[in-house]
Amino acid sequence: MNFILKNENAIYYECGYSCDNSIFLRLGSESFFITDSRYTEEAKTQSRNCEVIESDNLVKKAIELIGSFISEPIEYDPYDWNILEFDELREKVPNLKSHKHFSKTKRIIKTATEIEYISTASKYTRSAFSQFREYLSLKGIGKRENELHYKMSSILKNKGHFDLSFDPIVAINENSSKPHSRPTAKRLSNSDIVLVDAGIKFNRYCSDRTETFLVQKNDYANSQMSPKVQKIYDIVKQAHEETISKIKIGMKASEVDKIARDIITNNGFGANFVHSTGHGVGLDIHEFPIISKKSDTIIEENMVFTVEPAIYIPQFLGVRIEETIAIKNGRAEVL
Amino acid sequence: MNFILKNENAIYYECGYSCDNSIFLRLGSESFFITDSRYTEEAKTQSRNCEVIESDNLVKKAIELIGSFISEPIEYDPYDWNILEFDELREKVPNLKSHKHFSKTKRIIKTATEIEYISTASKYTRSAFSQFREYLSLKGIGKRENELHYKMSSILKNKGHFDLSFDPIVAINENSSKPHSRPTAKRLSNSDIVLVDAGIKFNRYCSDRTETFLVQKNDYANSQMSPKVQKIYDIVKQAHEETISKIKIGMKASEVDKIARDIITNNGFGANFVHSTGHGVGLDIHEFPIISKKSDTIIEENMVFTVEPAIYIPQFLGVRIEETIAIKNGRAEVL
Repeated sequence: MNFILKNENAIYYECGYSCDNSIFLRLGSESFFITDSRYTEEAKTQSRNCEVIESDNLVKKAIELIGSFISEPIEYDPYDWNILEFDELREKVPNLKSHKHFSKTKRIIKTATEIEYISTASKYTRSAFSQFREYLSLKGIGKRENELHYKMSSILKNKGHFDLSFDPIVAINENSSKPHSRPTAKRLSNSDIVLVDAGIKFNRYCSDRTETFLVQKNDYANSQMSPKVQKIYDIVKQAHEETISKIKIGMKASEVDKIARDIITNNGFGANFVHSTGHGVGLDIHEFPIISKKSDTIIEENMVFTVEPAIYIPQFLGVRIEETIAIKNGRAEVL
Repeated sequence: MNFILKNENAIYYECGYSCDNSIFLRLGSESFFITDSRYTEEAKTQSRNCEVIESDNLVKKAIELIGSFISEPIEYDPYDWNILEFDELREKVPNLKSHKHFSKTKRIIKTATEIEYISTASKYTRSAFSQFREYLSLKGIGKRENELHYKMSSILKNKGHFDLSFDPIVAINENSSKPHSRPTAKRLSNSDIVLVDAGIKFNRYCSDRTETFLVQKNDYANSQMSPKVQKIYDIVKQAHEETISKIKIGMKASEVDKIARDIITNNGFGANFVHSTGHGVGLDIHEFPIISKKSDTIIEENMVFTVEPAIYIPQFLGVRIEETIAIKNGRAEVL
């Protein structure tokens, strides 16, 4: 199959290298990595299974290379191309075939190495959460959300050893009721609830994790929430644990979603669980499968995705619990 | 003039707010900010001069709003749209007009407030460079490039008060000969040359600055480079200073470029100055005007751009000196 790629992670997946100005072209059995003079040297050292071609006009060079393949179908992902470059390309290459999420679809089943990378990223992330919870309890009271966000980012980056897989969420009390809350100047008080959603990359592969917990000064082990909060927490926790324990290969993704959603709905909070139960994780933080009400994807061995049920009560609180799991021996294994 | 925007900074410029899923629409005298339910609340509080519209299908909602304007010309920037959304839009809206760099063109002349923000970002960046140079001299010897990169990033972020305007470059000796060098595991030795290119954002406006300097253990003031390096440094320094002193309104950008390029070329290093002399700075780190050989843009009052001549000698060294300047009273003022 012939294809043409623009997306950095899609290109990295094919040849082990990518940069912010490149096109990858597969034509029959040959592969080409086209980039400009800034990156040629690195590309030649780090890429594999492709010929590195230098050009100051990548689209023009791609058209040239397509040459004798001009009338064969060539797949592309319409999400990856801006109008300007694409119109130039399709003017000269008549047989381009739109294939939404071309690379993410290829990447839905992970190799053992990919799972190992995500697992390593997840393990370090888990330890960063422990460090951060301890920090909050010992030194966090009185600090602002944006200072705490910076602190969590620093712990995750571990003096520059890791990149973040996304900008972390650190949200206090009612700020956690927005699924994508951005840090504010709000200060942490004793007995506040904090929601933290964060991850790092290991060898470019992402981790993704959320905890929601009570902060008690100098008492890291304490988790005695108010009865109202504890009730919500317990429902989310139950949804999270039951979903993970019941996932099996052969199920539809929508059935996985239903396990979590039914528990939350049956407890009266269905309208407060406003997003899907999970999403794939890999080179991108959001990959396939999507674990939603509508997804017909069949769960297979070596898929990797999050399980993250949640209840959001506007102006009061959001509780979300998230782990990334891999399907191993037909069941979910928390990474 | 009617227009439709997708780019975050372009949208922020129009209404003082933006997020990663929004469309901005100007139709006659009315403006609409379309976003999904995650951002509606924030958008309503923080945006100005526009109506906030919530939708889970932004393009469809935009088509609906265009309504009676359907046959009027509506401008868009082809760099901002992916094929998929744009094809949906242009199927229903026949009179879309391509306008490359629509927003960047609007933003080429800065207001006093914008210049003040860039100036504040620049001043803090300058002080971060001083702190980093002192750190290198006192504690940097033996540390790896990627550790130093992390240290410089931390100083710039100042405990989370600032975002970086781009991922900084910290390059030792021969690594500085690549204009876009990424940090490696190379260790800093006494008397090494270091190139640092970095900036922060203040109220979303970027700064951009480069220094190239000698690191001498415990001797921060020392700058006695080897004669060969000093010669290259002096040529770049001269190109930098003469360019800044000779910039005047009414010149073409290409004439500004020529001042720097001629000095470097006349000293025999023309082939080693492989990029343009500068670029505009604002909400984006790369804006207009572009200060290149080919640019016919006329320099005007209140433009803001970098002056960054350089000499790169592969496998040996790169020297670049960069300041961001504003055109005030007809001349360049270093911010």
